[in-house]
Amino acid sequence: MSEFELIQRYFARNQPTSSAVTLGIGDDAAILQLPVGELLVVSVDTMVAGTHFLADTPAELIAQRALGAAVSDLAAMAARPLWYTLALTLPDVSESWLEAFAVALAQRSAELGIILVGGDTTRGPLSLTLTVQGSVQPGLALQRKGAQVGDIIAVTGTLGDSRAGLESLLHPQKATMADLDWLRQRFYRPEPRLQLAQQLAPLAHCAIDISDGLMADLGHLLQASQLGAELELTALPLSPALKNFSQDQQRLRDWALSGGEDFELCLTIPAANWAQAQALAASLAIPLTDVGRIIAAPTLCLLDEGQPVPLSQVRQGGYDHFRRIHD
Amino acid sequence: MSEFELIQRYFARNQPTSSAVTLGIGDDAAILQLPVGELLVVSVDTMVAGTHFLADTPAELIAQRALGAAVSDLAAMAARPLWYTLALTLPDVSESWLEAFAVALAQRSAELGIILVGGDTTRGPLSLTLTVQGSVQPGLALQRKGAQVGDIIAVTGTLGDSRAGLESLLHPQKATMADLDWLRQRFYRPEPRLQLAQQLAPLAHCAIDISDGLMADLGHLLQASQLGAELELTALPLSPALKNFSQDQQRLRDWALSGGEDFELCLTIPAANWAQAQALAASLAIPLTDVGRIIAAPTLCLLDEGQPVPLSQVRQGGYDHFRRIHD
Repeated sequence: MSEFELIQRYFARNQPTSSAVTLGIGDDAAILQLPVGELLVVSVDTMVAGTHFLADTPAELIAQRALGAAVSDLAAMAARPLWYTLALTLPDVSESWLEAFAVALAQRSAELGIILVGGDTTRGPLSLTLTVQGSVQPGLALQRKGAQVGDIIAVTGTLGDSRAGLESLLHPQKATMADLDWLRQRFYRPEPRLQLAQQLAPLAHCAIDISDGLMADLGHLLQASQLGAELELTALPLSPALKNFSQDQQRLRDWALSGGEDFELCLTIPAANWAQAQALAASLAIPLTDVGRIIAAPTLCLLDEGQPVPLSQVRQGGYDHFRRIHD
Repeated sequence: MSEFELIQRYFARNQPTSSAVTLGIGDDAAILQLPVGELLVVSVDTMVAGTHFLADTPAELIAQRALGAAVSDLAAMAARPLWYTLALTLPDVSESWLEAFAVALAQRSAELGIILVGGDTTRGPLSLTLTVQGSVQPGLALQRKGAQVGDIIAVTGTLGDSRAGLESLLHPQKATMADLDWLRQRFYRPEPRLQLAQQLAPLAHCAIDISDGLMADLGHLLQASQLGAELELTALPLSPALKNFSQDQQRLRDWALSGGEDFELCLTIPAANWAQAQALAASLAIPLTDVGRIIAAPTLCLLDEGQPVPLSQVRQGGYDHFRRIHD
């Protein structure tokens, strides 16, 4: 099958129509119409077999994971999804793989309100690059910079689930099947917090999505804002399924802090807006948890019930190298 | 080196400023301002080591080739380049490789008038995905569809050079060093026909860039337009360097027809506009050659001095399978 036939057969069919898509899949480039008066928001994410997912992962899960992770960057900017391109590198052409992949991708795209407008298929080791685009009204994008001293550091949803889901795939665990299914779903099917981010945008100072882990991503936010933070470990939101997964509290805390790939949001919100922010989150049934404060000193201080955590208790290779985040 | 440090060190520095780039490299996404009243044009291209370039290709040549090839799709739409994202997958972090790559990429970006606004770096087998974006005024984009019976089929530049350049890398050839350098340059450093395409847009009916070879790409154009073509083999523009490269005329013709990766443009232009189109090309010192005509019958007929080429003379695996291009 030629690249041309492959694109026609699997990706060009059943595309939703949109007045914004003047020309979609099948030409040298797509032609698109940005909503008048809005700014374009662009992010790119690559997933490589063996690095970001196990090589034998079912095609539909690869599609769901890649699209959810990519669109999460639009949520982090409080942008509204518009369209995306897919660069798909495959070691060989398996029609059943492509069929499962394309069907899952189309379904998840519809759920997330984003349209595939172009792509490139090449031969090589399995990997995907998605360039997702959205729009935002001027002044309403949430960036990494802009935090202010005293801001509440808030995270959406729960943390560490995705890491536990991966762990359960790598090593069989003693846990109920319902918990395992839920945790693996958290790994395979990221849920970008699009609607909540757009609603919180006027109330928050900045945001980042948690892809590398809360410690690392909060570190990026602090570096961009040239500030520091106190993070209360006992406040980290852990799901019931995660708590059931392991009795090792330190391990769960590590995963919540630096497991990564939760694709929840970390926002900083001025205290005056906190009640309103919580009400918005509650109306969408999404947990929004106060986990710390922005401080002036350029350090990230971990607290355990308000007391600084001694360095000796911070695991090597965990998050200690993030303690001093910038000079 | 972390991904964050890598991006900061090699890609975020020395970025040109532009009023269109509200937020560039370093956040969850870039924020961009499309020229008022224009449409967005988006294309994605992946290059994989071992498939699209030899694994030991110098980093600066990989950068030049990937960017030129990607931007060529914008030229094919008659779009003006704006910005792009880079997804770079590397087996390991070599600082000297990254330095050479980033410097060449920045230089070629400046020459082509396009700005790097974001990216993703991942670990895995070497590959690059560039998503290039540009803008075009409504109604002035050149698409693959829109050809009309009687249109002149025109190609820019010369064909087959890139294939000869690759051949000289794979197999040492008897040729002058000056010719080899020039042919390899044609392979490594595609020159998107941006300016000419924008000037020809009001005169032409449609266009495609020649990445898969003239036969295949003209085939795509004919399929989109639901028409056919006569192609005069003796009219194919061959460079002096290509003619010096081999005495095998059939081989050179094959490369011109299906060697691919010339990244020249194939356009269809109504005869009434041909003189003006030629004058525009001449003013930019770019050859624009009449190589055939659009016909109503849905076939691609090869002519040799006006006489149909017998099927027996068409090489197996060359271009015979493209003769009947659609039903």
